[in-house]
Amino acid sequence: MTRLWDKGQPLDERILRFTAGEDHHLDERLVEYDVRASIAHARMLESSGLLDAGDCAAICDGLEKLGAEHAAGRWTIELADEDVHGALERRLIAAIGEAGGRVHLGRSRNDQVLAALRLYMKDAAEHVAALTDDAIGALERVAGDQGGIALPGYTHMQPAMPSSVDQWARGFAAELADDRDGLLRARARADLNPLGSAAGYGAAGLPLDRQATAAELGFAAIQEPVTAVQLSRGKAEAALIFELALLLGDLGRLASDLLLFYTDEFAYVSLPVEMTTGSSIMPQKRNPDVFELVRGAQATVSAALLEALAIPAKLGSGYHRDMQRLKAPLFRSIDLACDCTAIMGHALGGIVFRPENIDMSDALYATERANALVVEQGMPFREAYRKVAAELAAGKK
Amino acid sequence: MTRLWDKGQPLDERILRFTAGEDHHLDERLVEYDVRASIAHARMLESSGLLDAGDCAAICDGLEKLGAEHAAGRWTIELADEDVHGALERRLIAAIGEAGGRVHLGRSRNDQVLAALRLYMKDAAEHVAALTDDAIGALERVAGDQGGIALPGYTHMQPAMPSSVDQWARGFAAELADDRDGLLRARARADLNPLGSAAGYGAAGLPLDRQATAAELGFAAIQEPVTAVQLSRGKAEAALIFELALLLGDLGRLASDLLLFYTDEFAYVSLPVEMTTGSSIMPQKRNPDVFELVRGAQATVSAALLEALAIPAKLGSGYHRDMQRLKAPLFRSIDLACDCTAIMGHALGGIVFRPENIDMSDALYATERANALVVEQGMPFREAYRKVAAELAAGKK
Amino acid sequence: MTRLWDKGQPLDERILRFTAGEDHHLDERLVEYDVRASIAHARMLESSGLLDAGDCAAICDGLEKLGAEHAAGRWTIELADEDVHGALERRLIAAIGEAGGRVHLGRSRNDQVLAALRLYMKDAAEHVAALTDDAIGALERVAGDQGGIALPGYTHMQPAMPSSVDQWARGFAAELADDRDGLLRARARADLNPLGSAAGYGAAGLPLDRQATAAELGFAAIQEPVTAVQLSRGKAEAALIFELALLLGDLGRLASDLLLFYTDEFAYVSLPVEMTTGSSIMPQKRNPDVFELVRGAQATVSAALLEALAIPAKLGSGYHRDMQRLKAPLFRSIDLACDCTAIMGHALGGIVFRPENIDMSDALYATERANALVVEQGMPFREAYRKVAAELAAGKK
Amino acid sequence: MTRLWDKGQPLDERILRFTAGEDHHLDERLVEYDVRASIAHARMLESSGLLDAGDCAAICDGLEKLGAEHAAGRWTIELADEDVHGALERRLIAAIGEAGGRVHLGRSRNDQVLAALRLYMKDAAEHVAALTDDAIGALERVAGDQGGIALPGYTHMQPAMPSSVDQWARGFAAELADDRDGLLRARARADLNPLGSAAGYGAAGLPLDRQATAAELGFAAIQEPVTAVQLSRGKAEAALIFELALLLGDLGRLASDLLLFYTDEFAYVSLPVEMTTGSSIMPQKRNPDVFELVRGAQATVSAALLEALAIPAKLGSGYHRDMQRLKAPLFRSIDLACDCTAIMGHALGGIVFRPENIDMSDALYATERANALVVEQGMPFREAYRKVAAELAAGKK
Repeated sequence: MTRLWDKGQPLDERILRFTAGEDHHLDERLVEYDVRASIAHARMLESSGLLDAGDCAAICDGLEKLGAEHAAGRWTIELADEDVHGALERRLIAAIGEAGGRVHLGRSRNDQVLAALRLYMKDAAEHVAALTDDAIGALERVAGDQGGIALPGYTHMQPAMPSSVDQWARGFAAELADDRDGLLRARARADLNPLGSAAGYGAAGLPLDRQATAAELGFAAIQEPVTAVQLSRGKAEAALIFELALLLGDLGRLASDLLLFYTDEFAYVSLPVEMTTGSSIMPQKRNPDVFELVRGAQATVSAALLEALAIPAKLGSGYHRDMQRLKAPLFRSIDLACDCTAIMGHALGGIVFRPENIDMSDALYATERANALVVEQGMPFREAYRKVAAELAAGKK
Repeated sequence: MTRLWDKGQPLDERILRFTAGEDHHLDERLVEYDVRASIAHARMLESSGLLDAGDCAAICDGLEKLGAEHAAGRWTIELADEDVHGALERRLIAAIGEAGGRVHLGRSRNDQVLAALRLYMKDAAEHVAALTDDAIGALERVAGDQGGIALPGYTHMQPAMPSSVDQWARGFAAELADDRDGLLRARARADLNPLGSAAGYGAAGLPLDRQATAAELGFAAIQEPVTAVQLSRGKAEAALIFELALLLGDLGRLASDLLLFYTDEFAYVSLPVEMTTGSSIMPQKRNPDVFELVRGAQATVSAALLEALAIPAKLGSGYHRDMQRLKAPLFRSIDLACDCTAIMGHALGGIVFRPENIDMSDALYATERANALVVEQGMPFREAYRKVAAELAAGKK
Repeated sequence: MTRLWDKGQPLDERILRFTAGEDHHLDERLVEYDVRASIAHARMLESSGLLDAGDCAAICDGLEKLGAEHAAGRWTIELADEDVHGALERRLIAAIGEAGGRVHLGRSRNDQVLAALRLYMKDAAEHVAALTDDAIGALERVAGDQGGIALPGYTHMQPAMPSSVDQWARGFAAELADDRDGLLRARARADLNPLGSAAGYGAAGLPLDRQATAAELGFAAIQEPVTAVQLSRGKAEAALIFELALLLGDLGRLASDLLLFYTDEFAYVSLPVEMTTGSSIMPQKRNPDVFELVRGAQATVSAALLEALAIPAKLGSGYHRDMQRLKAPLFRSIDLACDCTAIMGHALGGIVFRPENIDMSDALYATERANALVVEQGMPFREAYRKVAAELAAGKK
Repeated sequence: MTRLWDKGQPLDERILRFTAGEDHHLDERLVEYDVRASIAHARMLESSGLLDAGDCAAICDGLEKLGAEHAAGRWTIELADEDVHGALERRLIAAIGEAGGRVHLGRSRNDQVLAALRLYMKDAAEHVAALTDDAIGALERVAGDQGGIALPGYTHMQPAMPSSVDQWARGFAAELADDRDGLLRARARADLNPLGSAAGYGAAGLPLDRQATAAELGFAAIQEPVTAVQLSRGKAEAALIFELALLLGDLGRLASDLLLFYTDEFAYVSLPVEMTTGSSIMPQKRNPDVFELVRGAQATVSAALLEALAIPAKLGSGYHRDMQRLKAPLFRSIDLACDCTAIMGHALGGIVFRPENIDMSDALYATERANALVVEQGMPFREAYRKVAAELAAGKK
């Protein structure tokens, strides 16, 4: 088995194993995208006169078959392939012969991996956005079904003003909608065609049609100049991870509220027993672990964001192998965001508020009383405020 | 001197000093925005029938004078004021009498601080965007004046393919343009009117006109429901800091290139002596400190981003005083981004490429030769690649 | 006014202002340490025959006077001084004449700033450790005075097993003791003499006695080889900030408990009114802001840790000006840790547990009952666990 | 198949899958440690009269067999086991019958997982320390074999003073030694026996001998009080990750130097061809990817540090399921540090300095000349500095 760049020279196995790293595992999810991008590249080569029709057909057909076989679980990327690109090119040549070696004309793994990654990121952003919509729907059902239940509005964790389950649920729904919009905006940075930039300096004399691959793959525009492509590495990744961090931040705050409301001392909500887990030692426990794990998840994505910002930091222009390390935090963040968003959408369906335990104390209405003094008696607000405060203090004695 | 919330109770000086923290310094930059937002609020109260015309005029006039005096350096916020809001309300009452106490009707410091902060963030984003445009202009001048100079295109810090000063400078300019666009997109999250949400649960019976303050202050929309306002704390801040981190990342990579090109061993660029600094011990040194400090700056903003994400993390819904800590990383990031972007725009004007030192070695053209074998002889790319590699290896012997 | 490295060349004011940055403010706290280190250096030069006795006396005397005047607030570092080193050398020459120019023999600002910073860090670590001891004392007083009050022990925020105020307070005290020990261990990385390494490559032919300055300044050892000194930049800083992050983490978790216990729904503790703050709009509120600000503080120090790790990242060996940016996160972290630790020691004195509100439900004793079944009846634990669980479930019906 | 805490209630499959998360994969490495800790716990139960000798022997024998079978790859943890603890208890009961259900007396998964994790962390710290010693050895061989080669000492990436390969290599070796010492110090926080704290509030009436398990497992001390155990979650993890971040920071800076020295323009070092990798498009390339990947690795560990600090942040006392998320960043950091440290030790063996390309310019000796003016002519240093600077400037004209 040979690597793409094999020129018959000796090879240090430890170095290979180290440099390939986890890529052969991580890249599994990129197979379908690399197949699509490679087909688009082959067709463009054909229409540009750089590949004859027969070879192009063989390449496209071969790639589609490889993609289908991969989807069916019939092969995986091996360490010696190094990555998805090596795996596909090697298997393509094995399948269709030397014509398979013609597809790499005018491209480098540097633009190839970006094309696959960006197609994947666009899909992932849409997928998380759809899961976020499901969670919004679940919040809206809470608002619709239980919205009339009164709830203290807290500031500083202290009762502040009257609120309701409706206001509570719709507040979170609005923020999740903001996160969903952010995710879709973040797609913009991934929506540029890198193909044609090759190693980062263009096609070295070949008449490539970058517009053609952009159109076939659905990229909104061509990234220009070619030197910008490698400079942009990590930015689309970071932008997507950032939005996932905001999303998990909002889900985490929602989880915090529910954990507080689920304490014995508040007892504002109940959860179906099948959504809680037990203790290995304490027979009485039913724990709301699902919300604790959601609460803890933003830490992982915020950290991944730092990782994605730090990897390209201070690197001069042009491709550096350091960039390979961007995949792990990106995939880790997407997977975690999908899991947490989906489970919250599911778990919200089990939340039942318990109005019998919710205390709407008189103090919640103090501001309303001060406002009434202003409106009805023309008192300046600051004076009304002191008057109501004095009454409350007296009442408490 | 009394605090807004003073009700005549005892006060622990250490607690006050601790809770006020740095706010009285940090808030200086918010005075003009709090004046604007307070005037808008007062006018809305008047048009809603909650404030009579005379009081409204006195309040607006008083606030404008206080703003002008502050801009002229005639007063600053004091520790005992706690923050900008306390400072303005206290001074307003001192200036115009009890009518000054009427402006706080229907608002809380919770929505008030957000109104001021968002107006400030919108301005700040535009200001950094304008500085970024200046830096783009400086890069375009480098491209225009020196663009024809050939430069190796590097990958892995090794000569890869032929490039040019034009491609080099325009690559960075494209990324800075991407950053500028991102900054302007980030304004969206700050472009929502928080006024009318008061402490986070609305106006407690008052007929406030949130559309009126939105229109007067130029907010794109009202933030709804009111419970979303405090849940969104930190998100607009983080979104802006994130874009600043990308901007400083790009400037840092540009600085890295220049530091490499300025080494004696490369000597690809010269810098005017007045842009370098000396050593306290080594008489021969002229150091490019300016680029080192720019290179190091992203670390500060990436860290501030983490800070802004971590501060609201895991907090239940409603306002928490932890949020006060968001100001410092926000202001720190904006100031640093302004400084670095401005100085890079300036320093780029001094860069002179030294073509006499730039070696365009034969190896840079290897890919072009392989491509030519494909186009001219119909050889599969992978075979052409091996043939050129073998020739190069032979030539090197 | 001239800079240390002035050689009569033109100067770009914007570059100077940018490169000096905040140093002239930040360095105020280093004046006393730079004075001490400079005196030690001068005495070593004298004993090494590189400075005559009269000059040495004049230098030491002059530096001591400058230090005393600075402590008395009679001068501060100016922008044109660039930093503490420039300020002291300029003022020393102004005070004692050309002999003042002899003190910089055999040193560079690179080792000079490290000497001052390390002396400062050692002091700061001890200072925070002492404040931590105060907070431990406050917790022990809570345990001593109120320790007998029963408290549910929680897991997953659910009642788990019986605990007590004693166990609660002493658990936190133990962790603060761990933090204090960590702070003192972190001093080790700052306890190495950098003097004599000059710019990073030694004294260039001068017979310096590094052991002498180490002894006079109380450094545990000399840092060797000289090239290690600049490679170590940021490590002692990060080590100290890391321990401060752990400390603020523990204080933050303590604050979280108190905020929960202070809710109306728990009402497990009361706070003196003078330790709470009010609301600008809600007359009834007394908010525990002090604990919220402590809870939010770790975010700032964790971020500063990242900053300190990221600044030297990827820099080749030798000094780089990027390192200057390490001061701000270090000082920010130390100041914040001092403030928070001191205020917690103070505020803990006001906490009063309210046993009348603390519910020690029967379920807390379930594990004890299961254990008793094992000990008394020889039942396997897993069987006893299921039996008690079944009884509890039946009882709840 | 049942879970440890199964009480016959319904189960939501999605919730189980989400809460178990990756634990069944991650915990594979903890099997041997959980076996050891469980055997120690069983023996203590026996000597405390809580388990009869026959059951104890069966348990210990059963656990040892399970451990050996796991090491031989004959079983792995399944999703339905949830984690290593569930997997071992279930298999033990299957193997030896109801006696297997007696081992969980007096412990909870909360102390059990900590015991296994701490034993693992202690081993891991020692393992990385040993790999660091190997890398130090490799640097010392470079110093020994090539140390006499002169090298410019750089500051600001500019030639500053004369240095040598010996000083260069030994500087890094000293910092790696500092990292190794730090790793061994970090073991201290993991070297406390958590067993006996059970869920976090002690043994609920059982006479456990915590000293006995500490002695058998080699823990330096018992962690007290029991409430400190769960408060300390994440601190030992963060302390170890922090030291790994410093180690990878030093390796990353070493990699940066080598990448700079390996550029065509410096050409100070060569690398054996088998340690470089090729390009998929550019036939001439031999890229030093191994050093780029090492340079990029600190970003991952610094981020993991943040993650480990943020996960327990703001959680009140007692166990929370969020803590489960600490394993992934810990294991990720350890694995990456092992890989990078080992490969650097290996790759350093291939570095050959090329003295023919190293330019020791005259300017490197300027400080030495200024020093000589001071020593030989008694000139104040600052004056000598200006004189040499003037000579250099004249010479350059």
